[in-house]
Amino acid sequence: MSLLLAMTGWHVEDWRERFQALLPEMPIVTLGEAYDRRAVHYVASWKHPEGSLSGLPNLAAIFSLGAGVDHLFADTRLPEVPIARVVDPDLTTRMSEYIVLHCLMHLRQQRRYERQQQAKLWDDDRNQPAARSVRVGLMGLGELGLDAARKLQVMGFDVTGWSRSPKTVDGFATFAGDEGMTGFLARTDILVSLLPLTPETRGVINAQMLSGLAQDGRLGGPFLINAGRGGLQVEADILAALDAGTLKGATLDVFESEPLAPESRLWSHPDVTVTPHNAAMSEPEAVATLISAQIKRLEAGEPLEHVVDPARGY
Amino acid sequence: MSLLLAMTGWHVEDWRERFQALLPEMPIVTLGEAYDRRAVHYVASWKHPEGSLSGLPNLAAIFSLGAGVDHLFADTRLPEVPIARVVDPDLTTRMSEYIVLHCLMHLRQQRRYERQQQAKLWDDDRNQPAARSVRVGLMGLGELGLDAARKLQVMGFDVTGWSRSPKTVDGFATFAGDEGMTGFLARTDILVSLLPLTPETRGVINAQMLSGLAQDGRLGGPFLINAGRGGLQVEADILAALDAGTLKGATLDVFESEPLAPESRLWSHPDVTVTPHNAAMSEPEAVATLISAQIKRLEAGEPLEHVVDPARGY
Repeated sequence: MSLLLAMTGWHVEDWRERFQALLPEMPIVTLGEAYDRRAVHYVASWKHPEGSLSGLPNLAAIFSLGAGVDHLFADTRLPEVPIARVVDPDLTTRMSEYIVLHCLMHLRQQRRYERQQQAKLWDDDRNQPAARSVRVGLMGLGELGLDAARKLQVMGFDVTGWSRSPKTVDGFATFAGDEGMTGFLARTDILVSLLPLTPETRGVINAQMLSGLAQDGRLGGPFLINAGRGGLQVEADILAALDAGTLKGATLDVFESEPLAPESRLWSHPDVTVTPHNAAMSEPEAVATLISAQIKRLEAGEPLEHVVDPARGY
Repeated sequence: MSLLLAMTGWHVEDWRERFQALLPEMPIVTLGEAYDRRAVHYVASWKHPEGSLSGLPNLAAIFSLGAGVDHLFADTRLPEVPIARVVDPDLTTRMSEYIVLHCLMHLRQQRRYERQQQAKLWDDDRNQPAARSVRVGLMGLGELGLDAARKLQVMGFDVTGWSRSPKTVDGFATFAGDEGMTGFLARTDILVSLLPLTPETRGVINAQMLSGLAQDGRLGGPFLINAGRGGLQVEADILAALDAGTLKGATLDVFESEPLAPESRLWSHPDVTVTPHNAAMSEPEAVATLISAQIKRLEAGEPLEHVVDPARGY
């Protein structure tokens, strides 16, 4: 039996080396080379070409090389075998790194000081507020949101949270549901979105939500950080709010369409920070280790973990 | 009796408003206007002009409007009255904001992603290390260093510390003295300097120290963050190490001479982040409140707090 590596955009040889070191006795093949299709028991995929996994009669499982599995379901000829997600405990830590970094960048006006450096201008701001004077509102209080909230509190920020259904969290106030949203937004200087993408949340970061953010805060206007899903945001509304000055800045890791199109105004807007959907990525070593452990589990007759429900899509 | 505000470079009318609100019955005068020199009992100074505080026969105390008092001792005609520092508990929080921000910027390659945004380039880094794989070495384990260390640990960094004399700190390893420096530097990917400036530490961040930093770390080379004092660093050596590639980047809040001269290469070096000595500044409101409290204390016959020893200079 063999493991087929099927990917586009990534360096397949790097992945072959990683898996070979972890599974020294497993033949590892790649899409571009000749291989025995009947021998392929496992596939590790990242955006494999449409149809490239069909005609594998002995396939037992497909592993996604990324945290998401959307890319697999984009293939209409995907074989009907169990699909497993990578569940990497590091992802929570990574996401909090990103959120604390970008909250601190807004707090400490890092973009301003970069512009000043470019202009060789030495000018401090005697009115720099402390973190405790700045209110961060986190939407989404799952594992990621709670870890970020705790770390933002350690840094001194005044944190609250919002979730669809009411949650009680030690140490900070939470709001819930539609009825809690107005009050939540009205006391938020930095809005952080970690919401999942569902039919309910699609396009929720729109003109209406942005117009509800606090305008009386110490940062001189509200900021948005979206590290959740691009489908949550209406980019035209974000740009309009930035242009109108009702939104002071935005940090976006995710976009309506990715990669972000070169013609998007978000790239060049002076108050927007764009990152390429990498707020929380797994290290390749960690991914290869987690998938290799799953393969060893199957080989030992044990059940697969973190199996995706195709009906829900996650 | 009156309070004289004596400053250069700052907006004196803003300070007059703040103090007047806190001391409504106190006459407040400024250097530029006519006032009764005999009535001046108190001075609040930030870089007052040389000699401008002489000829105040009833002066009882001088307050520095900044955390430092060097600017006062630069006046050879400074009256011999008690001088009080501002001791602002917010300063520790501010300094940790700065250090965590810039450690995270180096960890998450924020400069790289900014350049990519300018080029409209969508390119992630699959080999992004987690904070736990990155070793931060803090020089200076006073109140500021310990707070920063704790917060860096919460963010996941692998933290150690160095101090002149041995210190035992719960939760992380420490090195001490000249004999501990080599081992400390050899396991440091991000060197953070919070040392005080003394004859022993002047110029200590030089070619020899930089050449001892880890070259085998996950960030592809070591980084320097100096938020201590500019006199600690030899800027020619920092630039040489950056040019040679043995130092991968530097964040500098302090400089050999301030403001940083327009002709310094530090402004435009692509691997240097310059901030205008504002890592940890007090809010004017907090400073005015602390000084007003000291004045009320003196008026009530209580002793002055945080009095500077002119022999030590702090």
